[in-house]
Amino acid sequence: MKTDPVHSPEIIRITVDHMEQEFYRVLMQLGFLSEKAKMCAHVFTENTLDGVATHGVNRLPRFVEYIKDGHIDIHSEPTMEHRAGSVEQWDGHLGPGILNALVCSERAMNLAKECGMGCVALRNTNHWMRGGTYAWKTAKAGFLFLGWTNTIANMPAWGAVDCHLGNNPMVVGVPYKDEAIILDMAMSQFSYGTMEAHKLRGTQLSVPGGYDTDGTLTTDPSAILLSRRALPIGYWKGSGLALLLDIFAAVLSGGKSTAEISTWKVEFALSQVFIAMDISQLGNHSAIANTVHSIIQDYKKSRTVSGLQEVLYPGERVVRGRADNIKNGIPVDKLLWEGILKM
Amino acid sequence: MKTDPVHSPEIIRITVDHMEQEFYRVLMQLGFLSEKAKMCAHVFTENTLDGVATHGVNRLPRFVEYIKDGHIDIHSEPTMEHRAGSVEQWDGHLGPGILNALVCSERAMNLAKECGMGCVALRNTNHWMRGGTYAWKTAKAGFLFLGWTNTIANMPAWGAVDCHLGNNPMVVGVPYKDEAIILDMAMSQFSYGTMEAHKLRGTQLSVPGGYDTDGTLTTDPSAILLSRRALPIGYWKGSGLALLLDIFAAVLSGGKSTAEISTWKVEFALSQVFIAMDISQLGNHSAIANTVHSIIQDYKKSRTVSGLQEVLYPGERVVRGRADNIKNGIPVDKLLWEGILKM
Repeated sequence: MKTDPVHSPEIIRITVDHMEQEFYRVLMQLGFLSEKAKMCAHVFTENTLDGVATHGVNRLPRFVEYIKDGHIDIHSEPTMEHRAGSVEQWDGHLGPGILNALVCSERAMNLAKECGMGCVALRNTNHWMRGGTYAWKTAKAGFLFLGWTNTIANMPAWGAVDCHLGNNPMVVGVPYKDEAIILDMAMSQFSYGTMEAHKLRGTQLSVPGGYDTDGTLTTDPSAILLSRRALPIGYWKGSGLALLLDIFAAVLSGGKSTAEISTWKVEFALSQVFIAMDISQLGNHSAIANTVHSIIQDYKKSRTVSGLQEVLYPGERVVRGRADNIKNGIPVDKLLWEGILKM
Repeated sequence: MKTDPVHSPEIIRITVDHMEQEFYRVLMQLGFLSEKAKMCAHVFTENTLDGVATHGVNRLPRFVEYIKDGHIDIHSEPTMEHRAGSVEQWDGHLGPGILNALVCSERAMNLAKECGMGCVALRNTNHWMRGGTYAWKTAKAGFLFLGWTNTIANMPAWGAVDCHLGNNPMVVGVPYKDEAIILDMAMSQFSYGTMEAHKLRGTQLSVPGGYDTDGTLTTDPSAILLSRRALPIGYWKGSGLALLLDIFAAVLSGGKSTAEISTWKVEFALSQVFIAMDISQLGNHSAIANTVHSIIQDYKKSRTVSGLQEVLYPGERVVRGRADNIKNGIPVDKLLWEGILKM
């Protein structure tokens, strides 16, 4: 196996405000309305602040490129097309995925206030960047959240060698103390962003993440990036769930499936689902908070494998990293940042 | 590693009617009302017919034992305790899990007819046997279905060696032709039932299913049954999802969490969630059917690994096996069947 050249990025720290201002400047140059540029800049910054640079600072150049190439229409607004009780179908008109998803998660919460739970299914939207954004937002507002997106085909079905499934990230959120418990996961064991980051650093994946071109399971990110055979979580299980999430998204939104999206080379016109549940209607706040707290307390009693101090719940590492990044600045690849300053 | 004695069961074939009659007879002896005995006998038979003997014929003796031990109250009826729009909380009063789940999946469909979607959260219920039962039922009636249950702690969190998570099976269903696409999966890579079946046959698991007592990933079912360290699907991802499913089930139903259930040695008083979505309100039937069909058509174009003829969608094998079992009789371990005849 050839080894790829290893890139050891120089990491610098950027303050939250400075990052957000630079993103805002770049977006305003593209012709965004100020309010929308602010919202997008805020989400790209927050994603980076929360440790998801792959869908934050690292992704901004591609977002800009998609706008310039006409795949994202920065002026379009999502519209409600059909309502069936607590379920609504929206059309994103190929607007920025972040803005469409913010509107739809807000609407899901309002539907939930009115109907106990609310589901907004969104078609013709674009990449929402970090799914966690919408789970943090809704969970911190007191709702249970369940949402997912389809993607372009980027993962083989279990038993297949070519990609007919999206890795269809799913996010699940629960309010917890002043923060939230947030699971944000793609159906592939590793995202392409994570595999690319490992390749750049010259590190192996912690567990097998896919197959090499010979069909052998491997922890080598370069081999998987070459074969395009990412492994679904739980083998046949994640493969099945990815298929079902795509079907749900396309059926509920009346939008495009992974198969249809994949007829283009570029990923756009996605289908997404946002479900919020208003738990304040199901019991008093402190009883519900106690239920969650007692589950986490028991979870934390887990005896750990040697070398590990404690088990973390989904999102716990995000909260800790965020505090550090607010204090010390957000870590960014120096070359990447210099490129953004020149945009 | 010691090898366990291998049991090579003699398999006999039992007709659907004969199996259902025998189950009915056994249940009537316990004092069931005739109508309820019929429903339970039917579900236990269907589960076996569909190839899930672990939650069919193999499980009937334990179901009987739980009734005799007083963990299942065969006369109690589930009651609706609270409604918040499209969400309802029900109490199962420790009745048979199958009967409670049938009522709640029926109710979820009726809520969906009224509200677009419906969620029934059920507390104080018992093992629903095969989650797929409720997904097949609702999907064949034309609804999208999403449901899950918590369980007694039987899986370590990622990074842990002792069990503080349930493997919390989740089921997802979509109508397809006259049948359905049904994903029915526990959050552990293999259920204990599957691992026990492999142990009895003396076969290895197809992929690593957990850790041995030395902390090494293994495909040996006996080693995992000994260590009780089943592997979550996708490592940290399935661990996170299992935790979130338990929190959702406990919060939505106002019922017991895995931690609370696990204070007893026996698994009862579970919490479950049944969500149905009425897609007939979202578009015309043939357009929706076409969406699903075109996704499956594309999925089936997958190029397979050598030796595999085609990729199967979740539930496809069930439909094929069912046809064979109806024609040739349901395969059952002869010794087990003789035991049931003597009950």
